[in-house]
Amino acid sequence: MAPEPKPLGKIAGLLLDVGGVLYQGDEAIAGSAEALTALREREMPFRLLTNTTRTTRASLAKRLQGLGFEVTEEEIVTPASVASAILERDGARPHLLVHPGLLPDCPEEAAGPNAVLVGDAGEHFTFENMNRAFNVLIEGGTLYALGRNRFFRSASGFELDAGPFVAALEYAAETEAVLIGKPSKDFFVTAAHDMGFAPEETLMVGDDLESDVEGAIAAGLQAALVRTGKFRDGDATRARKGGARVAASLSEFVEGLVA
Amino acid sequence: MAPEPKPLGKIAGLLLDVGGVLYQGDEAIAGSAEALTALREREMPFRLLTNTTRTTRASLAKRLQGLGFEVTEEEIVTPASVASAILERDGARPHLLVHPGLLPDCPEEAAGPNAVLVGDAGEHFTFENMNRAFNVLIEGGTLYALGRNRFFRSASGFELDAGPFVAALEYAAETEAVLIGKPSKDFFVTAAHDMGFAPEETLMVGDDLESDVEGAIAAGLQAALVRTGKFRDGDATRARKGGARVAASLSEFVEGLVA
Repeated sequence: MAPEPKPLGKIAGLLLDVGGVLYQGDEAIAGSAEALTALREREMPFRLLTNTTRTTRASLAKRLQGLGFEVTEEEIVTPASVASAILERDGARPHLLVHPGLLPDCPEEAAGPNAVLVGDAGEHFTFENMNRAFNVLIEGGTLYALGRNRFFRSASGFELDAGPFVAALEYAAETEAVLIGKPSKDFFVTAAHDMGFAPEETLMVGDDLESDVEGAIAAGLQAALVRTGKFRDGDATRARKGGARVAASLSEFVEGLVA
Repeated sequence: MAPEPKPLGKIAGLLLDVGGVLYQGDEAIAGSAEALTALREREMPFRLLTNTTRTTRASLAKRLQGLGFEVTEEEIVTPASVASAILERDGARPHLLVHPGLLPDCPEEAAGPNAVLVGDAGEHFTFENMNRAFNVLIEGGTLYALGRNRFFRSASGFELDAGPFVAALEYAAETEAVLIGKPSKDFFVTAAHDMGFAPEETLMVGDDLESDVEGAIAAGLQAALVRTGKFRDGDATRARKGGARVAASLSEFVEGLVA
């Protein structure tokens, strides 16, 4: 392996991306379940950090358990689960435009809203709901977005994700959304604080060069890129240049860490 | 009045904006109905050029007749009414995402669409309809927009216009919409051709400095700004600098023209 460009800092805790790091499609990535167990045995704190905006932490935990991962709901950090803390810090009282299935993880709908929180609302992106959100924004409300992904592939073709509707509201209200999910700095830092650690003693492991690795480093964390999931040739060189570690998989990364 | 900065070209035909030039709110602007009659008596051809994307030419004609204007449906040019010609020129077979009430003016829905035509669809901007449009775009389809206004005031508050949903589809498909309404060059030129005239012998009269006046001049037409409708102080100076005429109203403009 090529030498690392920077000496490694102390690592007090880890943030682990989920899709492409723990599992791929409907299967666990080889060695990743054992890697989580190894972290637990060595008492290395971690959180699973994922941008999902339609699945609750509870159902994601259940899904991961079904794939053989020993995880609890409380170890999962999603944009919805940190939204309360971020909105409270900003004094924002949100009107919610999210999928009803995500409500258990979201802040409460506020009575006199001065903000809008948009997630991947799916078929709940009706004209009426979009107008309701817009009327909060046009009165000076702040727009928060759980994510701004463009689309995903579903059984019936391509389906629009939250991003286009965030763009619609930005255009309508001539504003720019505050992004809560990766790669926003707040998201990484809040997850590190959740373990009681400063950003610089926390390391993010992900398969997405921009969102996971470069995002974490920009937020003051350490980072490692794994060659699973959406990893593409060329990513490793750019990741190392940016000061990140590179490992074949989560399993290999954890082996190197606890050796 | 200040002297005109440029000698006037020959004027063979006129394009007249509707809202703010012919009427304001629910009333005809003083002298504007008489001005249309005067143009007709002097055999000066004209078309009414408006960006409306929810009203058919037929119902707009009826409304104007109710306000005392002597006009026919055929004299009204809207983005929907020129869309057929523009899409045909481009070899575009559209999937329509417009308000059903506008269908009489629109091109036909195509069987194997390679384009999407978006208007102010109102409550028909459902998630399902947005996905359907997106699936045409993601296969390489071209996006056409009848307009890209942000919003308008309705009885129930502010309502989103076509613009935000055009922005959503642009963001999702990483594309840029072809605008059919004002201030697109195509719109002015098509309307001039509809009277059988070249752009440079056609003059646009409007109350909107950017959309009507500067748009028309950029398209090679002559233009005149009227001090009715949305006219604001400062517009006149900028209009004259750009080579436009300025008149107190359509009535005054027509008097000067036919004198």
